[in-house]
Amino acid sequence: MSQTKISAPHFPLQTSLPNGHNFRGKIGVFDSGVGGLTVLKALLPRLPEADFIYVGDTARLPYGSKSQATIARYAVSSARFLVDQGAEFLVIACNTASALAIDDIRDAAPVPVLGVIETGAAEAHATSATGDVLVIATDATVQSHAYANACAALGLRGIEKACPLLVPLVEEGWIDHPVTSEVLDIYLAELFAQADAAGLRPDTLVLGCTHYPLLRGPIERALKAHAHRGQIRVIDSAEATARHVAAALPVGTGTEFPAAGRATMRFYATDSVTKFRSLGTRFLGQPIEDVSLVDLGG
Amino acid sequence: MSQTKISAPHFPLQTSLPNGHNFRGKIGVFDSGVGGLTVLKALLPRLPEADFIYVGDTARLPYGSKSQATIARYAVSSARFLVDQGAEFLVIACNTASALAIDDIRDAAPVPVLGVIETGAAEAHATSATGDVLVIATDATVQSHAYANACAALGLRGIEKACPLLVPLVEEGWIDHPVTSEVLDIYLAELFAQADAAGLRPDTLVLGCTHYPLLRGPIERALKAHAHRGQIRVIDSAEATARHVAAALPVGTGTEFPAAGRATMRFYATDSVTKFRSLGTRFLGQPIEDVSLVDLGG
Repeated sequence: MSQTKISAPHFPLQTSLPNGHNFRGKIGVFDSGVGGLTVLKALLPRLPEADFIYVGDTARLPYGSKSQATIARYAVSSARFLVDQGAEFLVIACNTASALAIDDIRDAAPVPVLGVIETGAAEAHATSATGDVLVIATDATVQSHAYANACAALGLRGIEKACPLLVPLVEEGWIDHPVTSEVLDIYLAELFAQADAAGLRPDTLVLGCTHYPLLRGPIERALKAHAHRGQIRVIDSAEATARHVAAALPVGTGTEFPAAGRATMRFYATDSVTKFRSLGTRFLGQPIEDVSLVDLGG
Repeated sequence: MSQTKISAPHFPLQTSLPNGHNFRGKIGVFDSGVGGLTVLKALLPRLPEADFIYVGDTARLPYGSKSQATIARYAVSSARFLVDQGAEFLVIACNTASALAIDDIRDAAPVPVLGVIETGAAEAHATSATGDVLVIATDATVQSHAYANACAALGLRGIEKACPLLVPLVEEGWIDHPVTSEVLDIYLAELFAQADAAGLRPDTLVLGCTHYPLLRGPIERALKAHAHRGQIRVIDSAEATARHVAAALPVGTGTEFPAAGRATMRFYATDSVTKFRSLGTRFLGQPIEDVSLVDLGG
């Protein structure tokens, strides 16, 4: 794993549009795959008149096991593509890209960029009473310590744990499955042991990967084994991100969006559009229609 | 998943060097990651004086969940790189690339090319008495039906089963682990149910992914629940491939190799060389030294 230094985010988040920008309602959403559709799903009811452009870099996923240099190269090419398609605001729905490439994306994209790590940490700050926060995520996200840094910037203590089996379990469709329960029991026991060793009293658990909201039920059930520690509140960074995006954009004033009506969505994938459509529907919670294949050079 | 037609291999395998070729002992081995090192490990004692060049396309792995077009594009770029480095014979150690891109690689590479599917099927043919063969592999390999086609070309009946959780379990290091045993029990029960439904009496199980030899012990233990069906023989396609390569090359005559002594190995990875070195050592069974980063355009 690359040892590149990841800068902590600056709070409050700088995500407003430039003064005088005539916002046309085009929002780009980027993920390495279909997981970021959980963020888009959370955005839809909050920005019902926006035009969403979504890129899933499915030919090069997963990012979670790769190096910072490779992740940054991939994420920047996707971000540039979204800006070329007219996006005026970028949502980096991929936790791994948010953790390891947000600075590179901001350098490359001339529009405001919001990542899910910053919003997840801000949400944890708003809800945690003890200031001690658990984070589960991919290998690369955890090794970057992006969540711990974002927590520290807000005065929180973050304890992170890589859970590399959870994404394959979700993709296998084993949601309410005894194997998944057993894996969650093992991961959470290890995470609480880390927290105990550090003398922390966590009251918040951040789902630091876009696949994990699909396991929210099993995760909340697995947390019951730790009920003697008091209630642990689960934070879905997809929801938190959608709230931040809606707050940052001039929505609801009735003048900024070109057309009233329902949100439009265009999807791009770097690998099979058929597979994107079939797998993505589960994450978006509605049928996916307009998907195009795009070659970002991989 | 792309519906591209995959041609069945022609037996006996056409892998000899051209007449008059002055073989210098340079063998290229390709995999999407470190798994193909199990093939290189099996090659070393059989070709102790060869020069091996290994490419792991770690920036774009895994191939097992991607489309035929994407896999072919990736595999061809790696094969061309190996030929540019002087490889006179290519071993496609990646089951997924062997299943979905062997024809594309043969079209692109002006040297003999041997894939692990063909050799795995040939080995099953040599050992199965009933002619009924079980295959476990990745999603993409199974959906291509490359093993079933290769079995059919030899008069065998092949029943295939995708086991997408096994690679992440191996990479998590959960080899002798209760979760892995439970997952294997589920997958094997489903595979035997498929065989029963087709009226087959399998006596052979092909490990159709380079990660699976690391689970050989747990797989053989899980097969004991099915002992009433008679003995099931496990075929490791890495071993089978190494035997085929050694048989195809002019080794041991004492004149073809430029230098006596031990095999040399050079490694290339498309992502972090540090990670390749640390993860690969477990697959190769010895320390990995000379690893270079190579950009194949992803």
